[in-house]
Amino acid sequence: MKIGILGTGMVAKALAGKLAERGHSVMIGTRDPEATLARDQKDGFGNPPFRDWKAAQPKVDLGTFAAAAEHGDLLINATNGAGALAALETAGAQAIADKVLIDVSVPLDFSAGFPPSLFVCNTDSLGEQIQRAFPRARVVKTLNTVNANLMIEPKALAGGDHTMFVSGNDADAKQAATRLLGEFGWTDIMDLGDLSTARGTEMYLPLWLRLFAAVGSATFSIKVVR
Amino acid sequence: MKIGILGTGMVAKALAGKLAERGHSVMIGTRDPEATLARDQKDGFGNPPFRDWKAAQPKVDLGTFAAAAEHGDLLINATNGAGALAALETAGAQAIADKVLIDVSVPLDFSAGFPPSLFVCNTDSLGEQIQRAFPRARVVKTLNTVNANLMIEPKALAGGDHTMFVSGNDADAKQAATRLLGEFGWTDIMDLGDLSTARGTEMYLPLWLRLFAAVGSATFSIKVVR
Repeated sequence: MKIGILGTGMVAKALAGKLAERGHSVMIGTRDPEATLARDQKDGFGNPPFRDWKAAQPKVDLGTFAAAAEHGDLLINATNGAGALAALETAGAQAIADKVLIDVSVPLDFSAGFPPSLFVCNTDSLGEQIQRAFPRARVVKTLNTVNANLMIEPKALAGGDHTMFVSGNDADAKQAATRLLGEFGWTDIMDLGDLSTARGTEMYLPLWLRLFAAVGSATFSIKVVR
Repeated sequence: MKIGILGTGMVAKALAGKLAERGHSVMIGTRDPEATLARDQKDGFGNPPFRDWKAAQPKVDLGTFAAAAEHGDLLINATNGAGALAALETAGAQAIADKVLIDVSVPLDFSAGFPPSLFVCNTDSLGEQIQRAFPRARVVKTLNTVNANLMIEPKALAGGDHTMFVSGNDADAKQAATRLLGEFGWTDIMDLGDLSTARGTEMYLPLWLRLFAAVGSATFSIKVVR
């Protein structure tokens, strides 16, 4: 499958690497590919520069936001939440069209330090903001409740015995997202309903942040026991 | 132990019944005990009137908010969230004093219908509002992530293999709350840190509401897999 991924952070790299390994044709989109490749400093989390990762991933293409969106029959928004709408605007409504758009981004507001709050919540969500900005896109919110490593390898924790959620207005798009989740190894996938249910998973993030502190690691997840 | 419980709803009744059964001296507090006992209609959830429940619970005393707060060496706020601060004001700062105050209430705003939103979240929480209003009280937020039946009988679901959280500024108060949780049968109890972490568990509520719809029952909980 041809997949376009917007973003060059940990989440985008994890998803791109895994999807390319699975045989998909993956292009990562960034604002300015040359600038992205020119960076030679570690990122804020101490990870090597993008170009080092890219050199080890010859199968993953790099292009502009627009090129990645054009490339993909299915798109993944893995930008940081604060830049999500701007990145998608740059990609352009025509390239996004009526494609499945998996939104993994989280609406974190670091303006008051750590732990961050959310810049949208309660009566709206980032997923819904994206859907309103791109009404034709078939937005599915998922993967936003675990860290990048667990997204692509859920079985690395408790054999995968924990839960992933999907929210979206389009049943076929949720099925497409669910198939990708299955490729990663997710087995307990709950369809929460329409995209407004993304308020629920996005608002789990403040609990995730406190659990991160309490557990002392990002390698945790929740299982809905029912 | 002498325990005062504010509120006469499902949560207050479940906690009072269980704690009395465990041998604690329990008084439930309400605004107007006579009016509470005079009600002969089912509540909004189809439950029998309070007086029927009370008739079957001779060990549980009923008094005003102030009397229940006076009675308890440990207090539990089980009012509905929207009325929590007013109920505590009525009980009075002198009766609440520096007691452990377990806050189980949830800041639901039903003004725009179902599912409700939260009337406080993100950069504040109801638990913190209560703490600010009663600075001497040793507020612990807990039990606010499951329904009333699971609060008092966690082992009724998956043998109790799911997680409860405590948030609070006072370590001794959190220990007291944790002991009560242990009496109910909770075994996986995570201390999330100071009371600001209640933002995390209170903001889980919008996800709880969507899970409630997806599961089709309130008998579910989350396990933090780590």
